[in-house]
Amino acid sequence: MLHAIVMAGGSGTRFWPMSRTSRPKQMLALVTRRPLIVETVARLEGLVAPEQVMVVTNAVYADAARGLLPAVPKQNVIPEPCGRDTSACIGLAAAVAVRRDRDAVLAVLAADHVVTPESAFRETLACAAKVIAARPNSLVTFGVPPERPATGYGYLERGPELGRVDGSAYFQVAAFREKPDLATAESFVKAGRFLWNAGIFVFRADAILARLEKYVPELASKLPGLAEKYLLSGVVDAEVFGSLKKISIDYAVMEKDDDVVVLETRFQWDDVGSFAALERVLTKDEASNCGFGERATIDAKRNVVVAEDGHRVALIGVEDLIVVHTKDATLVCRKQDAERVKEMVALLEKQGAKSLL
Amino acid sequence: MLHAIVMAGGSGTRFWPMSRTSRPKQMLALVTRRPLIVETVARLEGLVAPEQVMVVTNAVYADAARGLLPAVPKQNVIPEPCGRDTSACIGLAAAVAVRRDRDAVLAVLAADHVVTPESAFRETLACAAKVIAARPNSLVTFGVPPERPATGYGYLERGPELGRVDGSAYFQVAAFREKPDLATAESFVKAGRFLWNAGIFVFRADAILARLEKYVPELASKLPGLAEKYLLSGVVDAEVFGSLKKISIDYAVMEKDDDVVVLETRFQWDDVGSFAALERVLTKDEASNCGFGERATIDAKRNVVVAEDGHRVALIGVEDLIVVHTKDATLVCRKQDAERVKEMVALLEKQGAKSLL
Repeated sequence: MLHAIVMAGGSGTRFWPMSRTSRPKQMLALVTRRPLIVETVARLEGLVAPEQVMVVTNAVYADAARGLLPAVPKQNVIPEPCGRDTSACIGLAAAVAVRRDRDAVLAVLAADHVVTPESAFRETLACAAKVIAARPNSLVTFGVPPERPATGYGYLERGPELGRVDGSAYFQVAAFREKPDLATAESFVKAGRFLWNAGIFVFRADAILARLEKYVPELASKLPGLAEKYLLSGVVDAEVFGSLKKISIDYAVMEKDDDVVVLETRFQWDDVGSFAALERVLTKDEASNCGFGERATIDAKRNVVVAEDGHRVALIGVEDLIVVHTKDATLVCRKQDAERVKEMVALLEKQGAKSLL
Repeated sequence: MLHAIVMAGGSGTRFWPMSRTSRPKQMLALVTRRPLIVETVARLEGLVAPEQVMVVTNAVYADAARGLLPAVPKQNVIPEPCGRDTSACIGLAAAVAVRRDRDAVLAVLAADHVVTPESAFRETLACAAKVIAARPNSLVTFGVPPERPATGYGYLERGPELGRVDGSAYFQVAAFREKPDLATAESFVKAGRFLWNAGIFVFRADAILARLEKYVPELASKLPGLAEKYLLSGVVDAEVFGSLKKISIDYAVMEKDDDVVVLETRFQWDDVGSFAALERVLTKDEASNCGFGERATIDAKRNVVVAEDGHRVALIGVEDLIVVHTKDATLVCRKQDAERVKEMVALLEKQGAKSLL
């Protein structure tokens, strides 16, 4: 049966002042009226029932996640006592899933990405499940045809075609490429066989657990005990979990294994890494401003404007800015400095402005 | 005895969103912690007692002005039923003053200017009173030595020296000059004998009333009746006041009369015409940002930042902006567009955003 693992570990300081310690990026309604995590689960409708959705999140956010996802059983929201990267996260969820369903197939998704249209996502996911049915030992990744020479994403190099399902070809992965510089990214886009690594995976729970045993045995050996204790007590043992090797699933498994398959996606995908990225996923007005909430503009162009709580943001003459109003803080930042928002969080922390963090 | 007429008629849409229909510029604490109108009255301390201060303001603002100035007798806050420019405003106040004190000397001040230091202002005002004692028929104006070739102010051309008082020379006014273009303003500064017309006047009430009778008889003839009715009823007759000729005192009297005297000031004076002007009167941080309220900056330069109500404004990388946060609206505007803030008020009015006006 198809299950989903929604990874919701991020804190998202790049979205301050919207994101706070108590309200990380995945809980923000950044693109639609619903929080990203709610959209992520809604996207699975018809393929994965809420009872088969597992959310792995920082223990601090577990109750909030349960509140946002009332249809997901409370025990399916697994609270991580600390962040130990994706191998530990996926490993624990897979170990829990396999105990409930020996034939569990897992769709691994980030809670804070934007995918449109949902129908195309569901088609690719259904294809992936069929690939796994045909090749139970394979690890399927989703490769997004690059729209631009992005330097913020990792890339997959497509190898030979392995077969077709529902009219779509799937390929062996020839290589994983880390975030490239611009020239390399441009050559990737030109070459045509490079795809963005969306970090979306589909595999059988037993297949990924076997890989973890092979490549990270010291981590894998602790998973059964952690999973059993969790299923009995609802608690993830902090000491054991905290001792797990901190390593990404890409680095630990995907880049090493030779049975990794890539399916080309036909949906638009964005990890919305900063306020500047909102431009790519929101509708723009005639002066190329975008955002949400009430705004009024005079000769203002290409700005990203967020106004919470019915507040009005009025812009005159400004261009290429990010303006974000929240109840107690307002950010005004050049789009080119969007990555520096986390520096502001650090500054406010240093200044002891706890209520704003 | 020295009296003061504080002209507080402005609505100040150039300070939106701080200024609103119910809170015009003169009632804002733009420079110090006290509203400009409170600073204006405080500046008179030791020279004009609150009982001798008259405030002329739009009837809509009269109660608010009385609330801000509890030491000023309520009847001294004269509510204008409508705005009829400075000849009507000063004429009515002079007509009221002369009925209380036949020898009233009036210092006419705007409620929304910034003057520092106060001591220098008081010295000039005391000098002016002495000039009037020596020349009871003269109209004294304050001329501010220009700090820069301002194009937003009118200028006075200094004529021959008429005498000295307390070591300061005073001069005949040779000419009034309207707001010049930049080249003319630069030539004025170079020439040395041109002074900013600060719109601050000192004259006997009977002297200005006689001038109004001479130059605007149809206006002057209605003043005694208006003043008497006001002193009896506390009401300015709307029909009569509304019928007064709408003309500035500069245009009606000062520019025509040949007994206008100018005293050079030794204080800094600014009419703070827009948010951009705050730069000239506020203390700057090491990156030349200024303003008030809580702000946090990273590589942000030369911005004017206002944050009301304990809100935090955080700036990254931006330069030469005006950022003003109020409870229900936030303005982000290039400094060079400061004069266009009134366009935003017009836009919001058109959009029916009444609560923001």
